[in-house]
Amino acid sequence: MSTVRGGWESSWVDRWEQRTEWPLMAAALLFLVSYAWPILDPDLSPGLVAACAAVGWATWAVFGLDYLVRIALAEHRGRFVAHNLVDLAVVALPLLRPLRLLRVLTMLRFLNRSAATAFRGRVIIYVTGAAALLIFVAALAVLEAERLHPEATITEFGDAAWWALTTMTTVGYGDHVPVTGTGRVVASALMLGGIALLGTVTATLASWIVQRIAENDTSEQAATRAQVEALAVEIRALRNRLDR
Amino acid sequence: MSTVRGGWESSWVDRWEQRTEWPLMAAALLFLVSYAWPILDPDLSPGLVAACAAVGWATWAVFGLDYLVRIALAEHRGRFVAHNLVDLAVVALPLLRPLRLLRVLTMLRFLNRSAATAFRGRVIIYVTGAAALLIFVAALAVLEAERLHPEATITEFGDAAWWALTTMTTVGYGDHVPVTGTGRVVASALMLGGIALLGTVTATLASWIVQRIAENDTSEQAATRAQVEALAVEIRALRNRLDR
Amino acid sequence: MSTVRGGWESSWVDRWEQRTEWPLMAAALLFLVSYAWPILDPDLSPGLVAACAAVGWATWAVFGLDYLVRIALAEHRGRFVAHNLVDLAVVALPLLRPLRLLRVLTMLRFLNRSAATAFRGRVIIYVTGAAALLIFVAALAVLEAERLHPEATITEFGDAAWWALTTMTTVGYGDHVPVTGTGRVVASALMLGGIALLGTVTATLASWIVQRIAENDTSEQAATRAQVEALAVEIRALRNRLDR
Amino acid sequence: MSTVRGGWESSWVDRWEQRTEWPLMAAALLFLVSYAWPILDPDLSPGLVAACAAVGWATWAVFGLDYLVRIALAEHRGRFVAHNLVDLAVVALPLLRPLRLLRVLTMLRFLNRSAATAFRGRVIIYVTGAAALLIFVAALAVLEAERLHPEATITEFGDAAWWALTTMTTVGYGDHVPVTGTGRVVASALMLGGIALLGTVTATLASWIVQRIAENDTSEQAATRAQVEALAVEIRALRNRLDR
Repeated sequence: MSTVRGGWESSWVDRWEQRTEWPLMAAALLFLVSYAWPILDPDLSPGLVAACAAVGWATWAVFGLDYLVRIALAEHRGRFVAHNLVDLAVVALPLLRPLRLLRVLTMLRFLNRSAATAFRGRVIIYVTGAAALLIFVAALAVLEAERLHPEATITEFGDAAWWALTTMTTVGYGDHVPVTGTGRVVASALMLGGIALLGTVTATLASWIVQRIAENDTSEQAATRAQVEALAVEIRALRNRLDR
Repeated sequence: MSTVRGGWESSWVDRWEQRTEWPLMAAALLFLVSYAWPILDPDLSPGLVAACAAVGWATWAVFGLDYLVRIALAEHRGRFVAHNLVDLAVVALPLLRPLRLLRVLTMLRFLNRSAATAFRGRVIIYVTGAAALLIFVAALAVLEAERLHPEATITEFGDAAWWALTTMTTVGYGDHVPVTGTGRVVASALMLGGIALLGTVTATLASWIVQRIAENDTSEQAATRAQVEALAVEIRALRNRLDR
Repeated sequence: MSTVRGGWESSWVDRWEQRTEWPLMAAALLFLVSYAWPILDPDLSPGLVAACAAVGWATWAVFGLDYLVRIALAEHRGRFVAHNLVDLAVVALPLLRPLRLLRVLTMLRFLNRSAATAFRGRVIIYVTGAAALLIFVAALAVLEAERLHPEATITEFGDAAWWALTTMTTVGYGDHVPVTGTGRVVASALMLGGIALLGTVTATLASWIVQRIAENDTSEQAATRAQVEALAVEIRALRNRLDR
Repeated sequence: MSTVRGGWESSWVDRWEQRTEWPLMAAALLFLVSYAWPILDPDLSPGLVAACAAVGWATWAVFGLDYLVRIALAEHRGRFVAHNLVDLAVVALPLLRPLRLLRVLTMLRFLNRSAATAFRGRVIIYVTGAAALLIFVAALAVLEAERLHPEATITEFGDAAWWALTTMTTVGYGDHVPVTGTGRVVASALMLGGIALLGTVTATLASWIVQRIAENDTSEQAATRAQVEALAVEIRALRNRLDR
């Protein structure tokens, strides 16, 4: 999602992004802890609750500052905003911030594998990681929203996580259902995430099956560029011989 | 979905379609407002309710007239009807009329993108727009159908929209369920829409993954027409040399 | 699903299949009516109920006889059975018999369309027709199985059809749920049908999107056989000239 | 999933795997019986329950021993572990052990079929077999976990199997829902299995439709390697003629 940049400038942006990589990951993790703790432990002392809230605001400031610095360093600001919509969403919607943690997954290596297998592996791991994070954060958010509602059926973290799982897989038993507006907005995000999850799994499987069948069926393999280029070399040699 | 037309005639049809583009969009928007208002505000004065009903009939007349004019201008009437089934459905089923608003989306531009990315982007935006419109219209329709039924569980717009969302994503909690025949017909449309939505998301992702893998794997790329045409030029040159 | 046959024999099998085409469709329709009528009208006179049962047995005899005749005419009996498993299932499971009615759909013509569009159109129409038939027959079967059970929630045809629709689309509200063993077996068939329906819709959309993108992107189109054959002709001409 | 091995060693590993094939299948079947029996028959005598438990431990020892022997025979131990994660999971998670029974399916032959049809057939049969096994084992596991819970709605095997089916197909009526932690973990496995099932069915259908369309549309078929190689032979002949 990096922008196209010119000359000397790119070094500044790249250097900034390399240096802020780990601090931003730490901020995302801190945010997740400070968000989860007061929700998971309702008996937390008021001092710690206030500390968690302060940490939440601090991480927001960190992400906001990072975005402003990068927009300032960017050559084409409009293009930067258009190409980094996810970063903008992370600043505007705090609950998306833990998605930054997915960057750890980029460090995974798929050695001794073909490009296709590695790409599919990366897609599957990203989607699984995002799904797990989404279920955890959505369970926290729905628990916070529902807990105090008189008709709520989601009042414990176990139920909230179970509900998030059944929603994302589109099973939807209906034994636990959000009744507040916030809870339903969280549910919408989960449903869309579930559709994306199912779609990605299916699409990756389809690409694998299509490739496996193409590999088995050698006689029908398409002529590759390499073969046609070899032909072209042959014909050029023929022409040279005729010229002499 | 335009028909194949001959000569001078095409200009008349095209001119008619260009001139009616915006008036029909306005009529679709007017219809949506006049349909939604009395349902969302049950305390609306009888005069305004009657006005809304009148606007509804007027937009029906506008769409019907447009269809009749275009059928009159068309060279092959049978072919026109066969190629414009969506337009016929819009005249016959008033609730589909707001789909006309999706034409605004054709104005979105995908600059600096490859043809494939632009096509996939357009598919995703169309499907998302159609899904959002369908959820809104279905929520209104089911609310109108259910509200006065003694056993109804869908009696507010919030519940109706929530129900429409859980139905379209095929989650189906069952906390709100239509009990009238009309409500169930609306539900069927939502379910089919949901299957189409899920299918389109998956298919678009599959096409993207297949293309990404093909791009990564350069050595196996299929020989393109351009390469084979270059070869043909080479051989023709060879033949010319031999002739001389 | 026709078997590979040798010489004079094939004419007998083909003639038999052509002549029995319409009688078997009529038998399937008769079976559907005789099966549906006593279930939809519980106050049917005992005489008519007995008549419907007799018609049901008669259609079974017709389908069984047809299968026996075709097995007798077939050259390779083992191969005939292996290649006509659907026909065997239709004889063994009476409720699948109405699927024979889908053959009417083969008469639909997709004129002035490319082979790809026609094939996709045929797949979509077959799947939609099969889904509609399956919902209708499953609603009848579940109604017959559940109606007299004390805890049943499916006691009317409207509820049964609604339940079948929500099951096949995997929405599963749970407002109407089968409680008998037979009802649950019917539900399994519907769920598998729903997975097949969703899969086919997605797969057809995927094939359409992949093709549309391939068409848009002319410069990257794969070299076709026709082009390479043209090249071969060119080279052969070159060789002939050299020989002279 | 076999590792890459060098020289004389491979023969030892291969011989071990060939000789243990059937004993391990028998152990998996024994495990399944010893696991299912005490759950399906709650009035089983304590002696038989203890015997079943003993058989369960014995099969665990057999699978663990097999894994240790194969790790000892392997040249590259790290690579062996990385390439045989399924085998490790089967040792660590006893409930996955019946998946070993799926190896019987490898004996199925798809004679007289193209490679593509055979591969798709194998995928479909594997997925169907795995789905059926998963539903059976999950129904047993959930029944064992839920049966004694005061709020449980799953207390009979019929209900457990019905619940497993509605969960795997993501229908999720909610008439039977697990309330214990173990039951919910089993449900998660079923949901993921269901997503994989749906994905595989769709992907296989997509690959079939894409191939059918490619076959119908002869004029647009990609040039095959065979054709381009024929061209190359032709040109080489031409060059030879010129040389003489």
